[in-house]
Amino acid sequence: MLKLKRMPKHIGIIPDGNRRWAVAKGLQKEDGYEYGIEPGKMLFEEVRKLGIPEVSIYIFTQENTFRPRKQIAAFQNAFLKFLNWIKNKDVSILAVGDASSPFFPEELKVFTVPQENREQKMKLNFLINYSWKWDLNMALVNSGNKRLRKQDILKNIGSKDVSRVDLLIRWGERRRLSGFLPVQSAYADIYIVKEMWPDFKPCQLHEALKWYEVQDVTLGG
Amino acid sequence: MLKLKRMPKHIGIIPDGNRRWAVAKGLQKEDGYEYGIEPGKMLFEEVRKLGIPEVSIYIFTQENTFRPRKQIAAFQNAFLKFLNWIKNKDVSILAVGDASSPFFPEELKVFTVPQENREQKMKLNFLINYSWKWDLNMALVNSGNKRLRKQDILKNIGSKDVSRVDLLIRWGERRRLSGFLPVQSAYADIYIVKEMWPDFKPCQLHEALKWYEVQDVTLGG
Repeated sequence: MLKLKRMPKHIGIIPDGNRRWAVAKGLQKEDGYEYGIEPGKMLFEEVRKLGIPEVSIYIFTQENTFRPRKQIAAFQNAFLKFLNWIKNKDVSILAVGDASSPFFPEELKVFTVPQENREQKMKLNFLINYSWKWDLNMALVNSGNKRLRKQDILKNIGSKDVSRVDLLIRWGERRRLSGFLPVQSAYADIYIVKEMWPDFKPCQLHEALKWYEVQDVTLGG
Repeated sequence: MLKLKRMPKHIGIIPDGNRRWAVAKGLQKEDGYEYGIEPGKMLFEEVRKLGIPEVSIYIFTQENTFRPRKQIAAFQNAFLKFLNWIKNKDVSILAVGDASSPFFPEELKVFTVPQENREQKMKLNFLINYSWKWDLNMALVNSGNKRLRKQDILKNIGSKDVSRVDLLIRWGERRRLSGFLPVQSAYADIYIVKEMWPDFKPCQLHEALKWYEVQDVTLGG
């Protein structure tokens, strides 16, 4: 069992590389998502064992919904399989994204508001039909007609119930945020895993946590 | 001369590590900033030679102004020396940050609005007494009393005149944004230089550009 002196309270996960992995295996691009389910389960079990209290996972974005229909169906199916598995695991699920769109799965609408007992459970945030533009623009909608000048925009964004991300781990080698929770990730330490998401192994998470342990936290100070 | 097929239109620069560099040399922390001026000049000359049309540089943040007074004076002095050198270089300077604070240098107030001929010159954006919270909250101030619901928040943020960042280069080994232009950096490719900023060499910039050349641009798609 991994023992660390300093653990993140909230990790962000960008499980990238499913399509590239599939192509490298001679499969169709959309076949990759199915192979991302088992890694998701392994990650969850590992994070729970380690006692990390909050995890945010980039499931799909509004930009992703401009991809070919076959791919959209494939990543939505894969996610719903994962959801069905995880929703009985005594976690507090929060779905963050534009729920007014047909791309937002019906099954998830019940999770768009924080559950009452959220603080007592492991928090699992799914970014679903999410986009950073939607997230920020929701501040205008949520602020409504109230006087805004003295308000804090951060209390009104779409992802206002998601806490600051300490460590962001991205699979699939690319070194960018791709719009992942820009507000919460302002100070996040970013760790890149070279392997594609379907090749997830717990040791990759461990390496990220060991790296995070020796970073200094300054929050910009 | 470096020849590349694909060049960024806008690079972000986080010149971190001045204090750590100074401590490693047996100097006082605040002495490091002075050694960051010459690297700034070298970087500018190199970027101009390469023809990159826009550069944003993280000069100091609102969080930085909670540091010891000696350090604040040192980074402000170093920056003003750099500013005096560069303002005659036929560039279009834009100062982005909270100009209502005493930490915002008087000399810069003239640069808080885009210059008329901005499109004809190399654009140089200095983040000065900047913070991502200020940047986003300015949307509330700028939107004023207008009806907001259908507006795009991005057109009203504090840094609204700064374009999307293609490549973000950070010196000093840390792998995080530290609040650098969260909106413009949503899709930026992030390149980390191990060396501290006072040890800047043009080859580090070249390596970053060569790495950027082989990244694919998807803008989240």
